[in-house]
Amino acid sequence: MRALTFEGPGRRVWHDVPDPVVTGPEDAVVRVDAVTICGTDLHILKGDVPEVTPGRVLGHEAVGTVLDVGAAVSGFAAGDRVLISCVAGCGRCRFCRDNLDGQCLQGGGWNLGHLIDGTQAERVRVPFADRALHHLPASVSDEQALLLADILPTAYEIGVRNGRVTPGSTVAIVGAGPIGLAAVLTARLMTPSRIVVVDPAPGRREAAERAGADLAVPDAAAALDAMKTATDGLGFDTAIEAVGVPETFELCTDLVRAGGTVANVGVHGAPAALHLERLWIKDVTITTGLVDTSSTPMLLRLLAEGRLDTEGLVTHRFGLDEIQDAYDVFERPADSGALKVALFNG
Amino acid sequence: MRALTFEGPGRRVWHDVPDPVVTGPEDAVVRVDAVTICGTDLHILKGDVPEVTPGRVLGHEAVGTVLDVGAAVSGFAAGDRVLISCVAGCGRCRFCRDNLDGQCLQGGGWNLGHLIDGTQAERVRVPFADRALHHLPASVSDEQALLLADILPTAYEIGVRNGRVTPGSTVAIVGAGPIGLAAVLTARLMTPSRIVVVDPAPGRREAAERAGADLAVPDAAAALDAMKTATDGLGFDTAIEAVGVPETFELCTDLVRAGGTVANVGVHGAPAALHLERLWIKDVTITTGLVDTSSTPMLLRLLAEGRLDTEGLVTHRFGLDEIQDAYDVFERPADSGALKVALFNG
Amino acid sequence: MRALTFEGPGRRVWHDVPDPVVTGPEDAVVRVDAVTICGTDLHILKGDVPEVTPGRVLGHEAVGTVLDVGAAVSGFAAGDRVLISCVAGCGRCRFCRDNLDGQCLQGGGWNLGHLIDGTQAERVRVPFADRALHHLPASVSDEQALLLADILPTAYEIGVRNGRVTPGSTVAIVGAGPIGLAAVLTARLMTPSRIVVVDPAPGRREAAERAGADLAVPDAAAALDAMKTATDGLGFDTAIEAVGVPETFELCTDLVRAGGTVANVGVHGAPAALHLERLWIKDVTITTGLVDTSSTPMLLRLLAEGRLDTEGLVTHRFGLDEIQDAYDVFERPADSGALKVALFNG
Amino acid sequence: MRALTFEGPGRRVWHDVPDPVVTGPEDAVVRVDAVTICGTDLHILKGDVPEVTPGRVLGHEAVGTVLDVGAAVSGFAAGDRVLISCVAGCGRCRFCRDNLDGQCLQGGGWNLGHLIDGTQAERVRVPFADRALHHLPASVSDEQALLLADILPTAYEIGVRNGRVTPGSTVAIVGAGPIGLAAVLTARLMTPSRIVVVDPAPGRREAAERAGADLAVPDAAAALDAMKTATDGLGFDTAIEAVGVPETFELCTDLVRAGGTVANVGVHGAPAALHLERLWIKDVTITTGLVDTSSTPMLLRLLAEGRLDTEGLVTHRFGLDEIQDAYDVFERPADSGALKVALFNG
Repeated sequence: MRALTFEGPGRRVWHDVPDPVVTGPEDAVVRVDAVTICGTDLHILKGDVPEVTPGRVLGHEAVGTVLDVGAAVSGFAAGDRVLISCVAGCGRCRFCRDNLDGQCLQGGGWNLGHLIDGTQAERVRVPFADRALHHLPASVSDEQALLLADILPTAYEIGVRNGRVTPGSTVAIVGAGPIGLAAVLTARLMTPSRIVVVDPAPGRREAAERAGADLAVPDAAAALDAMKTATDGLGFDTAIEAVGVPETFELCTDLVRAGGTVANVGVHGAPAALHLERLWIKDVTITTGLVDTSSTPMLLRLLAEGRLDTEGLVTHRFGLDEIQDAYDVFERPADSGALKVALFNG
Repeated sequence: MRALTFEGPGRRVWHDVPDPVVTGPEDAVVRVDAVTICGTDLHILKGDVPEVTPGRVLGHEAVGTVLDVGAAVSGFAAGDRVLISCVAGCGRCRFCRDNLDGQCLQGGGWNLGHLIDGTQAERVRVPFADRALHHLPASVSDEQALLLADILPTAYEIGVRNGRVTPGSTVAIVGAGPIGLAAVLTARLMTPSRIVVVDPAPGRREAAERAGADLAVPDAAAALDAMKTATDGLGFDTAIEAVGVPETFELCTDLVRAGGTVANVGVHGAPAALHLERLWIKDVTITTGLVDTSSTPMLLRLLAEGRLDTEGLVTHRFGLDEIQDAYDVFERPADSGALKVALFNG
Repeated sequence: MRALTFEGPGRRVWHDVPDPVVTGPEDAVVRVDAVTICGTDLHILKGDVPEVTPGRVLGHEAVGTVLDVGAAVSGFAAGDRVLISCVAGCGRCRFCRDNLDGQCLQGGGWNLGHLIDGTQAERVRVPFADRALHHLPASVSDEQALLLADILPTAYEIGVRNGRVTPGSTVAIVGAGPIGLAAVLTARLMTPSRIVVVDPAPGRREAAERAGADLAVPDAAAALDAMKTATDGLGFDTAIEAVGVPETFELCTDLVRAGGTVANVGVHGAPAALHLERLWIKDVTITTGLVDTSSTPMLLRLLAEGRLDTEGLVTHRFGLDEIQDAYDVFERPADSGALKVALFNG
Repeated sequence: MRALTFEGPGRRVWHDVPDPVVTGPEDAVVRVDAVTICGTDLHILKGDVPEVTPGRVLGHEAVGTVLDVGAAVSGFAAGDRVLISCVAGCGRCRFCRDNLDGQCLQGGGWNLGHLIDGTQAERVRVPFADRALHHLPASVSDEQALLLADILPTAYEIGVRNGRVTPGSTVAIVGAGPIGLAAVLTARLMTPSRIVVVDPAPGRREAAERAGADLAVPDAAAALDAMKTATDGLGFDTAIEAVGVPETFELCTDLVRAGGTVANVGVHGAPAALHLERLWIKDVTITTGLVDTSSTPMLLRLLAEGRLDTEGLVTHRFGLDEIQDAYDVFERPADSGALKVALFNG
């Protein structure tokens, strides 16, 4: 089959690789019908994720059709149309029993396009298939479903749920890339009082307002001003970090109120300063996390019912064999205006 | 009356000051029967807390007898033997309704020995008396009750409760001063599986083991070894910071497991490094806070019933007019072996 | 002043009574600008609430203007436009510190029109004024604000919050009177997947669908059918009882799924059968409660921002001196179509 | 092999049946080393549980040695010494992902001695073995471990955890049979302020006090008196029902305070009256449930560490082939003083 592999920093190749097969009783092999690219794939291509070794098929977000399943897979059979979650656990270890699939102790967690071959290919082997796959109703398109593989459950679980957004909350979301916009959309499920988004790119600020932000501002100074206006200077109930650099994390700790929560969603490569000399007395909670996908069935239901509107998140569409072009577009969002790109296999 | 006042960095004076009087309908004036010194008082004396201005009577922990109350005080009358909490809120503002008395928006919070005159005196005016004071049963001595003014509820609420200690938890407590020892005592209320304490001072490690720690180790390397043994290398469910310097906070983030909690109790004067490049994926929760005293009635009940053993926390006893000597002892714990000191007024 | 008093079962009189005055330091006296009638007032008039003695001014929901305050009232002054909550606590007792104002141990709780004179009058004395009153922004009309005195926070706290409605929940609401409709409106704040309402009155079912119910059915058989369709036969995540008779409560326990919650909001006069022979194994949670008004500021904010649409809840409007007519209309909802009635004072 | 089978109401037979074998990839077959009898087995023998059909091997609590495992079992191998939990789920369905293993939608839940052959035999087939079995450390004896198969996790999860027992709680436990005593032991993990047990049998009251109850009383009148003394008449924070008849459940609703919790643990055969005419206003929470065993690893750890003392819970010991005698003793606790009986296989 054809697949995109990582071949060392800066090198991605679209070429023939061996077809995946079922190797364990809990595996499924799935034909990829649609797939997308994640910011994390760009990190990997830069060489920032040493666990990813040359030859690895990239990608951890896809929608497809089951081709084959192992003997212990009870919920899926060949022909089923499915969502493939980016993370799946064994369902038996201590962490999986706490719904921390991302921390699975028995070989689960984030595997696809990371420790094993991923989804940017014509086919993919999916371990722990009963926990990784979700049946897709006809009312949800492939393109919509792609957003459930990672960004919607990540934004909801790690941003909105960890951030304890409740009705009437004031929420700051720092970063309006795909994950920040997904945080806007899923925060709105809780009817917050005020969502303020911070992003330097005018196009992303516009996208944030279309997604339902009450206000989008370009920088820290404007964010602090908005905080004063929106919260009487008390600070936001929740600040969601959706960029992944020290400055944006530190901004979140400046924006949050006493008793509030900073929910980190961004993927970081460097430490941030934690201003405990100001924060020790403020009753703040800071959370980090990797999606566990426990919210995926719920988000899928709301999507199917039309209660979660993802219009505008996918900006570009390609054939699967145009994946190198898709990467080119996705790597240059300032020029291309790209948010999520969708690739379709035939 | 006689009182100890702050007179600029390094200067404390025990001298005559005017008697406090009831100035608002929610005030009480209380005769101080017993009082203690807090590590925070030493910070103030160094000049680290600019809100404290010269002439301020220090101290925020005491036990006493009510002398007079304002017109709106309904729960207390002259003659009542009471605990004075270090923090009290108005009970009506948004934060107080969330039990965040320390963040009170209407003049409550940490006032005594900070923004108004405190308890290291023969008498003290206590605002929001109905919420600040607690009736003391005869079965609780003044010396025991002193520990309820700050360190026991602080350790329980900000360390144990924020840290989500539950039965069977593995708990690291970094720092075995008074607040760290109070964390050991109050963590034990939850029947954790394992408590490991980290402190360089041999006497404090012994005190920790007497208080119920399963193991006390001197430094970070030994703490990491203990983590490997006690938790199969996964990390502690809860790490409680009870020192207040960057190194100990950072150690806590190295000791905690994926999905676990770092509960900061220490008073910090400088930022710490938050290693988000490792932590972003680990599902950790970090909390800070100021005691709200919502646990004080419960801890008082357990103390009265003998279910909370504070033996050994008070190491030195003085008359109130020996307060300068008491400070000398408390400032030099390495020499004096001091944990908490208790001063009695006649 | 003029007021409506209870004069024994079936007897209500609109006549002159003495003006209320400030009697304690935490009191306010408020001019009533708008007031409404509650189903509970009808229970009282039947003689079902023995705590209410003849001569008592009825009513516990109103909006008004502060005329006078006691010495310890810090948040309000004469001239302020305010909402009067039906319940208010002392803010200091054990229950108030747990936000159980309705269970206040020091004279708070549900007082107005119950243990002391109420709001169906030209003026009313409000105890614990700092906790009972809320400032009203100009953007919220008296008529909208009336709904915050009782039914919106009651429906939200006791129905939606106790019922643990979350995004994607399936929710059954049994009863589509004012409180059931308020449950529909406030459940929608959480973006449930499905709201099914049960009420025999066609007009109320229409009102439920206008308020946002996905389906409204007339009786238990249809409700069980809807459960099968909406939940694959598993049962609803949440069943909210909003009537107050044994049959409707028992229906809720038939409609709820294993692991789900029955949130009772209705005021009951008789015991219900609890089918523990079926329920013991089902992991259900059943809750009851009296509003504590902790959600009132949040609901007020959402109302002011237009995020909570109460259109249609008030069906009839009167002058305050037409209160006997208003009762006549409110007592005969099948004929009059009445939901909430609003009375305006001049 | 030899096994005890149900042969219709009142008929139990100890005889030869076919050996169990691995029939699915997630099965294990385990040699039974020790087994016990549950009150539920007596219900089944009365014919009260129609799902149990003649010929069924009874029993759902055992300790043993793995003989064989299916292809998908990853955590266990022949020779492993294991605890067999009474309940186990698939780990993949919606309810298992919520830790509601007892409600598993894919064939898990309570199977052993109920829907499939159970543990009162020389060997047993255990489905979902990775989730049902737990490795036993050498420091835990078979007799101690037997208590982890059902009664300790049931008492902890359904009584103590559902009942929200916290440090300083006042707790009433109605019933001092094995499950009530297990509730006393596991409630103590939370350091409650006061545990009052209600049971008419003097021997069981003595056992309750040995287990750590502060007071044991014989009947409802004495329980209400104890409530007045222990809680100033407010009611207990938590009332745990551990009998399973309407009277004891109703007593629990009389003993609980406003804002408190009634946690039902008992297995019921008839409806109870729920006095909503008193309870609607009281902010009570009532819970029911079937153990999900999420607490089993934690309880096992505390048992291994000596932090959970089960001394006295097992009153009689037998060889496995004496099981008919063991039933005779267990069925007549008033005469025999039996709490739990343990049967050892060779």
